[in-house]
Formats: sequence, structure tokens, C-alpha cells
Amino acid sequence: MNFTLNVLGTASALPTTERHPSAQVLDVRGRLFMIDCGEGAQMQMRKMGISFLKIEHICISHIHGDHIFGLFGLLSTMAMLGRTAPLYIYAPRNFAPVLDFFRKHFGEGILYEIYYVVLDMTEPVKVYENRTAELLAFPLNHRIETFGFIIREKMPPHNVRKEAIARYGLTLAEIGTLKRGEDVIREDGVISNEEAAYIPYVPRSYAYCSDTAPFPELAQWLKGVTLLYHESTFPDAMTEMAAKTFHSTTLQAARTALEAGVQRLVVGHYSSRFPSVDFFLDELRSIFPATDLAHDLDIIEIER
Amino acid sequence: MNFTLNVLGTASALPTTERHPSAQVLDVRGRLFMIDCGEGAQMQMRKMGISFLKIEHICISHIHGDHIFGLFGLLSTMAMLGRTAPLYIYAPRNFAPVLDFFRKHFGEGILYEIYYVVLDMTEPVKVYENRTAELLAFPLNHRIETFGFIIREKMPPHNVRKEAIARYGLTLAEIGTLKRGEDVIREDGVISNEEAAYIPYVPRSYAYCSDTAPFPELAQWLKGVTLLYHESTFPDAMTEMAAKTFHSTTLQAARTALEAGVQRLVVGHYSSRFPSVDFFLDELRSIFPATDLAHDLDIIEIER
Repeated sequence: MNFTLNVLGTASALPTTERHPSAQVLDVRGRLFMIDCGEGAQMQMRKMGISFLKIEHICISHIHGDHIFGLFGLLSTMAMLGRTAPLYIYAPRNFAPVLDFFRKHFGEGILYEIYYVVLDMTEPVKVYENRTAELLAFPLNHRIETFGFIIREKMPPHNVRKEAIARYGLTLAEIGTLKRGEDVIREDGVISNEEAAYIPYVPRSYAYCSDTAPFPELAQWLKGVTLLYHESTFPDAMTEMAAKTFHSTTLQAARTALEAGVQRLVVGHYSSRFPSVDFFLDELRSIFPATDLAHDLDIIEIER
Repeated sequence: MNFTLNVLGTASALPTTERHPSAQVLDVRGRLFMIDCGEGAQMQMRKMGISFLKIEHICISHIHGDHIFGLFGLLSTMAMLGRTAPLYIYAPRNFAPVLDFFRKHFGEGILYEIYYVVLDMTEPVKVYENRTAELLAFPLNHRIETFGFIIREKMPPHNVRKEAIARYGLTLAEIGTLKRGEDVIREDGVISNEEAAYIPYVPRSYAYCSDTAPFPELAQWLKGVTLLYHESTFPDAMTEMAAKTFHSTTLQAARTALEAGVQRLVVGHYSSRFPSVDFFLDELRSIFPATDLAHDLDIIEIER
């Protein structure tokens, strides 16, 4: 029942010897969601032993090259490996000509369907769900149309306490009511869900915010997320440059995490000006202590 | 006065953990010719310490993804690094929509000119020359229009032997004639270039042949090349598969090298079926002993 973030790349626009462009794969109990697909993503996946064919969904935040130039190679490789399972790509409206170009010039022999889900929401909207998880997209604040993503486990059915069944002589219908998380209402009173049932585990959630300048609604949309990945392209001293390029600084990322009340913050998308970003960490933790720096090839487990 | 091949990738269609897709940089006395630009080429260049801005020419053999999907990232990076020097791209006719797509969707803020030289020759044709080197392109035999390249030093001016100047009382005009490699013709006889002058060094040459099935004219076009890089996608046992996919086997590559009388052969573009291709080498050397296997990040010096 794993919920694992695989970090393929932590560079911003210019890759370095240690950092590939943005790309991640979130493994939710064996079902893989890819988020952004910078150049070299397929080679990084090979290094991490991630199966190309298990990717069901690809979320594209925006069509800057450092977030999508690995897509053509990955889609081609999937085709050459004989993929037939459909692939869902969630991307902004201006992704359409990118996909058209690929299909027209490199789409020969592709046996799988690509379903392109167009993102154009102005607040968080659920764009996909299966039995156990759901995917939401929401707008970010960048130079071009850009979206963030939340992938979260659904609330599991509540477990009904055995002693409550005996004590109240619960009927099957009443047990069903409690499993759905509701109270049982009888003529002679209420059996509260809290007393008679419990959540077997707290659903985990992951949010991805890159690239973005800070904006008021963001923290509210991220309320209660377990793990937040937020870009932190620049240190605090470069706040002006961050504003000019619609990116975030260390302090801005940490403030959003604090305000949203997330459990953990991980940052990336570092400016190539800084071969080492270790000094980012002090700035980040001065506001939000539960912060870590992401590095290429990191595997981050989100425990229940 | 170096003449150095930098191997960025030796994979064929599917990259592996050890092999990036096709890309090379030939350094001719500090002027850089890139040949093919598979995904991840810019990251490999960073690892090898090759300057993006020193690339003057990019030769594209054909528009299969494993030979060009690194181009968008590299061209973008050159732009972000502030390149203003023009870039020459030599590529087949069907590269036009690829370049158009890049320019339209990712060309914002590019300050350098891209000159696209269309390849459509049926035999070797010189497509570029400078004071010391020249670039030729010629057709290969692949599933789609594909070209090979030869980059060679020009024949240097001959040195005139001091003793010949004294012995024959050579005039300045006659010395010029000898420098150009010609004989001096006097009324009373001929002073042969061979006797009175010598070549200060033998011009070096490099040829790139990938992807291609063997064909009769190829060896003749490669006559006397110093270093030949030839694809060797498959071992001899897969000759049928090679024919079907318009690729070469070990023995076919080695036979072309032998027939062309090249000095050295280096092979690459290995099928991903073979995590190790060490056994290719025995097959290759059984026909052409001066053969080596290329590996990613190899630096191959061609000495004078």
C-alpha cells in the first residue's frame, strides 16, 4: 500500500551535471502518475527501475521546454515496447499543438490511445478518480498557463467497532451507515460515528506546485496535504528576480507550506546559478522546519 | 591542433541505463561539429565539459526520434545562455516541420540565427568549408531519408625543402607552385613536387554512418578515411532483422571499413537487446582488426 514519490529531475530551465529537468513519478499503490516530463526522464526512469508501461497518467504543468522535452522520447519508447494500454495526459490548452506535432511526425506505429484531458480550471477540480485515489488540478501563477496537481487517496470505508455492534445491536443497514462515515439516527437517539467507528488509516496526499509565484488562494487549496513539493528556484536574496520570472523563493515556498498546514515540504526546481543549494535549507527551515531538499533520483516514501 | 571525437550516446532506438541515444561532438582544432542530437545530449555535453556555445554546426542524419529528441533542449539552452552566433543545421528535407515547430512554440527569445541547410544529394557533396576543414554529406540506406557525414582537414600547403630551393634556385612563383602541391615545369625539364616538397602532415578525416544498411557505393565514398564511426546495431546472427530494419550487423560494418581501407573503425548504435556488446568485438575484428566499441562519454583522439 505504498505512496511513493520518485524524483527524476530537480533542475530549472538549465540542467546541470547533477540535475535533470523537472519530472517525477508518484506511485500510488502500484499505479503510476507521472508529473512533468523534462528531457532525459526516460533515462532517469531506467536508472530508478520504473516501468514505462505502468505509467497510466501524465500530468503536464505547462509547456516550457524543461517540463516537456522528455515526453516525445518517452511516448516513442512506450510505443516501441508494444504498449497498448491507453495513456491519459492532463495538460493546458496550449499543449494541443505539441501533441499534434508528435502524432503527425512521430506517431507511426503507436498502438495505444493517448487521451488528452484539457486543463482550464480556475480552482481545484477533480480530473480523474479510481477506486482508491483521485487527481485534482488547479491553476498556478506563472508566465504562461500553468497548473498544479494534487493526488490523494480517497477516504477509506470506516471500520465499525465490534463492541458497538454488540452494545447497540446494530443492523446491517446501520453498519453500512457507519462505514460511510455517517451517524446512525434512531428514534431514541443518535449513535455517533466517532464513538461506534474509526478510520482505518488517514488518506495520504501529494501536491505538486511548479512553476509558480506565490498567490493568495494557493495555501487554502493545499490545506492538509501530507507532502507538498513546491518549487524554490531562488534563495530569499533573489526575491526580485523570482517576482520578475514568476517563480518562488525559499521563504515564499515555506510560507505557503506553513499557511497550508501541510505535514512535509520538499522543494526543487533550483536555479542553475547554485551548484549547491544546501544554504536554501536554512532559509526554508527558518519558517517551515519539516522541509527537505529534493535531489535527482530521490525516493520519498509517504507512510500511512 | 586536436581532432577529437566525443561520444555522447551509443544506444539505438531504446536507451538503456548505460547508453544514451545517438549524439556526438567532433572537435576540429577547437571548432565543434555536433552530429545527431538524441535525448539527453545537453546533459552528456555538460558531463564531458563541452561548451554549448562553441557548437557551430549540427549535422542531423535523419529525423528518427533517437537522433533528434535532444535538439529542442539544446537549442533552448543555447538561447538561455545568450548565444548570438549563428548556428548551422544540416538535415534532410523532412526536418523542415521539426524546425518550424520548434521556432513557433519554443523560439521566443532566441537571439541567434539558425541556418538550415537542406540535404538532398545522391552522392557526397561538400556542404561547408572553412580555412582548415570541410564537411561533406552523402546518402545512406535507411527506412527514411538519411545522410552520413565526412569531416576532414583540408590538404595543408606543402613545405618546400630548403635544399631544393638552393639546388634549383627556385623563384618565389615556383615556390608557390610547389606549395600548392604542383610540379614546377621549366623549359629544361620538370622539378617534381615529390622531390622538392613534402606534406607537413596527412590531413585527418572522420566519417559518420548511422543509420544504414550496407550498399555498394558506401565503401568507395569512405575511401581513405582516418576514423570511421559505423552503426553496428546487431550481431551477425541477426542479419535478417538488420535487413528488415535497414540497419547493419557487425560483419557488414567491418566489411565496409575493410573495403574502404579506413585506418580505424569505431562502432555504436547497439540494440538494447544486448546489455553487453563485448561479443560484437570478436565478430568485428575477425574482418577488420583495427576496430573498437564506442561507449557513452568516450573521448577518441585522432592523432596526426
